[in-house]
Amino acid sequence: MSLKKAVTFGEIMMRLSTPGQARFTQADTLNVVYGGAEANVAISLAAFGVSAEHVTKFPNNDLGKAATRQLMRNSVITKHISYGEGRLGLYFLEHGAMQRPSRIIYDRFNSAFSMIKPGEIDWDDVFKDAGWFHWTGITPAISQGAADVCKEALVAARKHNIIVSGDINYRRNLWQYGKKPVDVMPALIELTDFVIAAEEDIYNCAGLKGNSFDEACGALVSRFATVKAVATTYRETVNASHNRLSGVLYSKGKTYQSREYDMPVIVDRIGGGDAYMAGLIFGWMNGHGEQETVDFGTAASVWKHSIEGDANLASVEEIKALVNGENGRLLR
Amino acid sequence: MSLKKAVTFGEIMMRLSTPGQARFTQADTLNVVYGGAEANVAISLAAFGVSAEHVTKFPNNDLGKAATRQLMRNSVITKHISYGEGRLGLYFLEHGAMQRPSRIIYDRFNSAFSMIKPGEIDWDDVFKDAGWFHWTGITPAISQGAADVCKEALVAARKHNIIVSGDINYRRNLWQYGKKPVDVMPALIELTDFVIAAEEDIYNCAGLKGNSFDEACGALVSRFATVKAVATTYRETVNASHNRLSGVLYSKGKTYQSREYDMPVIVDRIGGGDAYMAGLIFGWMNGHGEQETVDFGTAASVWKHSIEGDANLASVEEIKALVNGENGRLLR
Amino acid sequence: MSLKKAVTFGEIMMRLSTPGQARFTQADTLNVVYGGAEANVAISLAAFGVSAEHVTKFPNNDLGKAATRQLMRNSVITKHISYGEGRLGLYFLEHGAMQRPSRIIYDRFNSAFSMIKPGEIDWDDVFKDAGWFHWTGITPAISQGAADVCKEALVAARKHNIIVSGDINYRRNLWQYGKKPVDVMPALIELTDFVIAAEEDIYNCAGLKGNSFDEACGALVSRFATVKAVATTYRETVNASHNRLSGVLYSKGKTYQSREYDMPVIVDRIGGGDAYMAGLIFGWMNGHGEQETVDFGTAASVWKHSIEGDANLASVEEIKALVNGENGRLLR
Amino acid sequence: MSLKKAVTFGEIMMRLSTPGQARFTQADTLNVVYGGAEANVAISLAAFGVSAEHVTKFPNNDLGKAATRQLMRNSVITKHISYGEGRLGLYFLEHGAMQRPSRIIYDRFNSAFSMIKPGEIDWDDVFKDAGWFHWTGITPAISQGAADVCKEALVAARKHNIIVSGDINYRRNLWQYGKKPVDVMPALIELTDFVIAAEEDIYNCAGLKGNSFDEACGALVSRFATVKAVATTYRETVNASHNRLSGVLYSKGKTYQSREYDMPVIVDRIGGGDAYMAGLIFGWMNGHGEQETVDFGTAASVWKHSIEGDANLASVEEIKALVNGENGRLLR
Amino acid sequence: MSLKKAVTFGEIMMRLSTPGQARFTQADTLNVVYGGAEANVAISLAAFGVSAEHVTKFPNNDLGKAATRQLMRNSVITKHISYGEGRLGLYFLEHGAMQRPSRIIYDRFNSAFSMIKPGEIDWDDVFKDAGWFHWTGITPAISQGAADVCKEALVAARKHNIIVSGDINYRRNLWQYGKKPVDVMPALIELTDFVIAAEEDIYNCAGLKGNSFDEACGALVSRFATVKAVATTYRETVNASHNRLSGVLYSKGKTYQSREYDMPVIVDRIGGGDAYMAGLIFGWMNGHGEQETVDFGTAASVWKHSIEGDANLASVEEIKALVNGENGRLLR
Amino acid sequence: MSLKKAVTFGEIMMRLSTPGQARFTQADTLNVVYGGAEANVAISLAAFGVSAEHVTKFPNNDLGKAATRQLMRNSVITKHISYGEGRLGLYFLEHGAMQRPSRIIYDRFNSAFSMIKPGEIDWDDVFKDAGWFHWTGITPAISQGAADVCKEALVAARKHNIIVSGDINYRRNLWQYGKKPVDVMPALIELTDFVIAAEEDIYNCAGLKGNSFDEACGALVSRFATVKAVATTYRETVNASHNRLSGVLYSKGKTYQSREYDMPVIVDRIGGGDAYMAGLIFGWMNGHGEQETVDFGTAASVWKHSIEGDANLASVEEIKALVNGENGRLLR
Repeated sequence: MSLKKAVTFGEIMMRLSTPGQARFTQADTLNVVYGGAEANVAISLAAFGVSAEHVTKFPNNDLGKAATRQLMRNSVITKHISYGEGRLGLYFLEHGAMQRPSRIIYDRFNSAFSMIKPGEIDWDDVFKDAGWFHWTGITPAISQGAADVCKEALVAARKHNIIVSGDINYRRNLWQYGKKPVDVMPALIELTDFVIAAEEDIYNCAGLKGNSFDEACGALVSRFATVKAVATTYRETVNASHNRLSGVLYSKGKTYQSREYDMPVIVDRIGGGDAYMAGLIFGWMNGHGEQETVDFGTAASVWKHSIEGDANLASVEEIKALVNGENGRLLR
Repeated sequence: MSLKKAVTFGEIMMRLSTPGQARFTQADTLNVVYGGAEANVAISLAAFGVSAEHVTKFPNNDLGKAATRQLMRNSVITKHISYGEGRLGLYFLEHGAMQRPSRIIYDRFNSAFSMIKPGEIDWDDVFKDAGWFHWTGITPAISQGAADVCKEALVAARKHNIIVSGDINYRRNLWQYGKKPVDVMPALIELTDFVIAAEEDIYNCAGLKGNSFDEACGALVSRFATVKAVATTYRETVNASHNRLSGVLYSKGKTYQSREYDMPVIVDRIGGGDAYMAGLIFGWMNGHGEQETVDFGTAASVWKHSIEGDANLASVEEIKALVNGENGRLLR
Repeated sequence: MSLKKAVTFGEIMMRLSTPGQARFTQADTLNVVYGGAEANVAISLAAFGVSAEHVTKFPNNDLGKAATRQLMRNSVITKHISYGEGRLGLYFLEHGAMQRPSRIIYDRFNSAFSMIKPGEIDWDDVFKDAGWFHWTGITPAISQGAADVCKEALVAARKHNIIVSGDINYRRNLWQYGKKPVDVMPALIELTDFVIAAEEDIYNCAGLKGNSFDEACGALVSRFATVKAVATTYRETVNASHNRLSGVLYSKGKTYQSREYDMPVIVDRIGGGDAYMAGLIFGWMNGHGEQETVDFGTAASVWKHSIEGDANLASVEEIKALVNGENGRLLR
Repeated sequence: MSLKKAVTFGEIMMRLSTPGQARFTQADTLNVVYGGAEANVAISLAAFGVSAEHVTKFPNNDLGKAATRQLMRNSVITKHISYGEGRLGLYFLEHGAMQRPSRIIYDRFNSAFSMIKPGEIDWDDVFKDAGWFHWTGITPAISQGAADVCKEALVAARKHNIIVSGDINYRRNLWQYGKKPVDVMPALIELTDFVIAAEEDIYNCAGLKGNSFDEACGALVSRFATVKAVATTYRETVNASHNRLSGVLYSKGKTYQSREYDMPVIVDRIGGGDAYMAGLIFGWMNGHGEQETVDFGTAASVWKHSIEGDANLASVEEIKALVNGENGRLLR
Repeated sequence: MSLKKAVTFGEIMMRLSTPGQARFTQADTLNVVYGGAEANVAISLAAFGVSAEHVTKFPNNDLGKAATRQLMRNSVITKHISYGEGRLGLYFLEHGAMQRPSRIIYDRFNSAFSMIKPGEIDWDDVFKDAGWFHWTGITPAISQGAADVCKEALVAARKHNIIVSGDINYRRNLWQYGKKPVDVMPALIELTDFVIAAEEDIYNCAGLKGNSFDEACGALVSRFATVKAVATTYRETVNASHNRLSGVLYSKGKTYQSREYDMPVIVDRIGGGDAYMAGLIFGWMNGHGEQETVDFGTAASVWKHSIEGDANLASVEEIKALVNGENGRLLR
Repeated sequence: MSLKKAVTFGEIMMRLSTPGQARFTQADTLNVVYGGAEANVAISLAAFGVSAEHVTKFPNNDLGKAATRQLMRNSVITKHISYGEGRLGLYFLEHGAMQRPSRIIYDRFNSAFSMIKPGEIDWDDVFKDAGWFHWTGITPAISQGAADVCKEALVAARKHNIIVSGDINYRRNLWQYGKKPVDVMPALIELTDFVIAAEEDIYNCAGLKGNSFDEACGALVSRFATVKAVATTYRETVNASHNRLSGVLYSKGKTYQSREYDMPVIVDRIGGGDAYMAGLIFGWMNGHGEQETVDFGTAASVWKHSIEGDANLASVEEIKALVNGENGRLLR
């Protein structure tokens, strides 16, 4: 594949999840993976055969090394990762079942990543062979330093004529360093070409309202000249094990919708949005049409729900087969 | 919470269950928990924040200690447990799947509990700070001694003005010591305020018949002046993995029904009735209305089906959220 | 049970499957069972209480011994197994979930079994107390030697007046030793009484076409005078976790169909056809009618989907209960 | 191998052991194997290539079937096992480490085996192709019925000119049915050719004392004319993980001793004596000399200490290599 | 046992340890227990049958609840635990083997415990039925608040005439809030009766030097009038799996030494010192002589090395048997 | 570190090992790692911080991908791996204990690697930034193609002025394609600077004999002008769990020996020689003296014995600490 490198930037946490459907208070062992919204996108793109690099900051200890190893194992380039003081952020995941929801306890404050500072990453070196940059709204929510480095990366990306996607992901538990999303996000969206956002995100991050997703997208596109398309997913939660999912993509005043998929026995719901993002980026990088792009992204997200861990481990062929209606028939 | 202590009395067995969906003949390891119909109620009440004590008899060995530890871990008071000769009752559980039923092999005869004798438990001390007592029809089915101590407990409870609930649970495999339910149960029901019973139980234990659950309840209430309410669940078994459940409560000639819940991927069905019982007791202890009580009890039972083990590990807030229509949405 | 011994003949492979729903690239451990289409039938028949023997060839090492041990554990007679040079064939299984299919990677070439030669098995001794012989289309697809020994066995079976069933199973990945199915299979079908075959199998193995299963069966029966009945299953793949299944049996110009079963949370789909075969053989051996036979076979296949591993571990009573509408109710 | 069949008779229990070095109060899972002193001998002999049959009585349920399956898996003939009422005896094993001893909690009363009655086993059929019979002092300690059937078997063995070995194993926790060892054992020893017994066993079971093992053996042989040899092991317990072991064999007034083996990281100590017994029987069956026999038996016992479970899974070649000084060098 | 309650105070962390001997970079699962130097003492005392309470502060979430559950499971009273803001401290443990050391990565800053403030614990209520209080040098090293509450507890203990023990444990990784040990520790040692300290600890915490342990103890006792005895252990590290351990106790100018124990296959070394402390406290509470006390404490520490997890799960009888020379012989 | 890249070349197999100390016939699960003598060296060098690349050929399926992922996870460059027809070689490992040896069953014939052909690898590209090349005697033993490519690589390495090391490892199970070691190996040794070889290897591969290791080395160096040094290890096998190890290095007529290490509870012995090789290469690459080099190599090999899997996961600092006498003391 002759696509240029895709770069993602953001925090990676150790995820400690209960085995099977155990509750936190039942678990004597925890399963370990390392995940983060942006790194999940990089892993997914690498599985699609795209050259992908993740930039982050880890503590300079064996936990940081173990997290780096997981990226390497998934073909993600780890060359510009910064190592320093601080801890590795964590999150604890209790897998739900049926009417009992899955639950997350975050323990991510004071991480090495939160202490990142402008100048720490050599973005010119990062971007010299890159074609895409992806960020999310989680990063500027973590600390002033993280917000500053995110801005720094976006400016550098623009300088290198790199296409930018951003997942405007409002997390109410973060934003504890004194800023509000509306203080910070607009300046970042201004440097972004493709946006993932639900209506609430558009309102929370850009202060823009609409009576529908279309209207909110329209308002966003009017306000931010760079933004070429906006996408989101619709998720119906029948119960914790059973969701229905479809994707929608707004581009040039039109809305493109995928078919709805039924997911009755979800293996792992975490990272479904990141898999969608990676699928969309893959379409956009390849210059696919809007319908093809949203169909591929949605199928990628659905596929992710069948995989344990934060990241989608699927090939392009597998996702295309799903788009084409292959539905789980045994492959010998 | 200012509720008085709830006391439960009954046998606890070691449950040895096959991992995953393995059959008995496939399993090289077995999972261990300790459960019993009455102790499951105590654990569930303790998880609701109610002060709960369980009274039982264990063998004086490390298995008895391990069972006690499980109660303590779940905040259940273990102060009046008796230790003595005999073995710990066991049951083996093979988890079914789809059309293949789950199966139980009991190995509970000659347990330490079955050798309990009147005078062994200081019921006056047990009940001095208690407000509720719960027993089931399993206890008088085990041995003459167990039946006698159950009666002794009920008489003491009455003396201390404690409200009594009883799960009139007819188990055809028990009752092997020479008595029949109708010889023993009526004298116990006479000392009971709230009864869980299906129509067959009412017939088997009290010899009373009705053309419907309502009629059977009517007959029961007519015959036993103390009985204020009768409750049961309706369970539709689509297959071993998929059940539907609703609860029903008869009180003062009226029947209150919960909505029906769909449970398509059951984690563990054992103890569903005990979770219902605990939910009802919680409502009754708090003086909630009939509809609120049956709704809470049914939701508690549904929640239990998503948890491995015999006992419901759920908070009041979690059950209330389910009653209010929350349906498994990821909690971050 | 006074039925005579059933003999099966074919290769057994070590199956290495990923734990839970892990992908190949995620798995650090693999679960081991030993399976093969014909041996699965033998194990299933033994679980029904039928005296069953499996004939195969294993490498003369501990892996061959471990495979033999699994047969013995399942009451299958292993007296005529040949041991020699070569390796044990393997297959790797990745369990799918929902829209993600299960996948098999075969690694079975150059196995000890593929090196089997006529004269190596004393068929007269094998068949002296036997009443049934079962083979599949996999065996003649493996090597010239395997095809020759299969023919040798069929000729011997006929000599001993043994009833023969054959699963005309066309596997496109095999047949690499220079022959095509149509070169080899007709001579084997000629020696067979009961055939399992879908329409494509009939076309691929015997070169016969029909506009429907009935027509194709009609053609098969016309062409091969020994064939008394033909059976197959209809499987609807909703997704990898959810299939629907029914069975159909063609006999003397008539078609008998079972009811359709819904299998929404499949535990293990591998060996579903072999379980069906074993159920049919059980019916035929006992002289049951066509409808009873196809009903029993289909229920056996459904039951298999709830069991981990290649083989059906079910009793006759369990299958009959499913035929009679028992649907997964907890058995205490 | 042209040796005649060896028959063993005795109870088999489900062993439930803690994983790793967990204490009973720490374990959430238990590992399951099925073992018994006599069956362990049969499994070990079968692994040596000897035709071996075990006779016992199991409950007529899936636990009895699972135990039978373990015997079959190990090539042990299970044709004359009786199935009936009662439970499967159990024992719980806590693996120790260093200064902390391993501990066993027995739960074996009221087992199906304890209810065995004379006439239940067709000993003439059992012994028709047999050359050896082995019993232990555990069987007559279980119940009057078990003692009676043991006697019945010994009488039948004598009638069929079968050589008999007995492990005079005094277990103080048993003998609860009203008889003492000295009431029962002498009549059984009278029918026995080869005896395993430590000095205390000789005293407890036959009331005979000696100032040394030699003297005690001398007394035993004087008293019981049939007894041709007596053997035992010397075990030095450095700690629970580290033992030293040697074997000793008394025959015709002479004592033969093996070398002492150092076992510094024992995997599983249970069944070490049974492995020794099987090694001796193998020597005696083959007419080996005393020194060769005690060397082989001791090496077999040492080998067992490296294997998880009750039974020794070792080939004759492996034991001989150990006798010959091979000491654990990697085999490629 | 009529001893009064023992109270311990200090932080509890979630311990996440690699399975078996895996390195951090190899582990996909981690084992979870909850431990802390002082809570380990409480659990050990509770296992000895002493009434024991632990006082600490946890985050008000499910991880805090899970930690509380572990204390309850071990019979430790949890009535005065404070719950509030902050996280649960963690530590990661990599189990070493032979020449490869075990390693700990701490992640304990900003814990709920570190935010504890004077007035938060009702020490008068804690101490009203207590006879002993135990603290360690870890607590004042965590934060000013923790140091203040430790002082507060000691003053209250003195007021209630409670005997006090302190483990003067200098941890160089802590003490990051601006104080040095010599600024804080002397005022705490002044309120303490029994001290655990190695020579370095005495120097680091009290600024006192001696040419030997005896001299250092002499200096300590001269300086601090309340101190009645000082104890420590001598540990020889042959390798990570193999240590040798003896205990020493200084009292009234005399030194009492235990025998040395060889520990060649250590299961878990963490908490060895806490188990020693608990053994000493048990001796002191019971008024045992110095030699008996140091012997019991040392044996308790040795026993701990055979148990997975931070805390010693041993009975008084087990420790006494080890003191008396029982050395790991199988207990049936 | 400014060292140039080290390149290794050779086959990688999937290793399937029994859990704990289970025998092949006991194991229901197998642990999976991917290893090969040369790749183990690359992984070890990468863990030392050396840029390391491994060149091999894998089947073009998910098993080849999974093996590649393991290399990437360990920072090994995988850029020149060839993918094609054929299978992935396997080996099965049974972990021994005490007197019971570990055993390996190879299943590596007809692998993709064995089908490698000259011209398939672009060695000029591989070597353009390399400083070291390492091969072993396993590669030319596999197939004519593998031997040819090995020669091709050596010639290219010489052209690029790259230093070459070779582990002259004679494996009697291989060499099945018609050539003998003495036909092939001399031409490869001629292109090699540093050799690992025991006396038997020197005899088997070069036909040279000596009365001692020194003499054999002398003969080798005389015959092959390029060879600068020869090294081997001395291993004393006390038992399968307990070995003693020292290293020896011959250079310019002198012999340098490390101290002997005692390894009493070996975790995993496989790859001990490869870890030694990597340690030596590290010394040679850095221009360390002979004694320092052999000391570092031996300590690296010892450290490997404490790690599960084929490859040594150790840092330079860890190995140096062991050389300096650190012996397993807990690191907090």
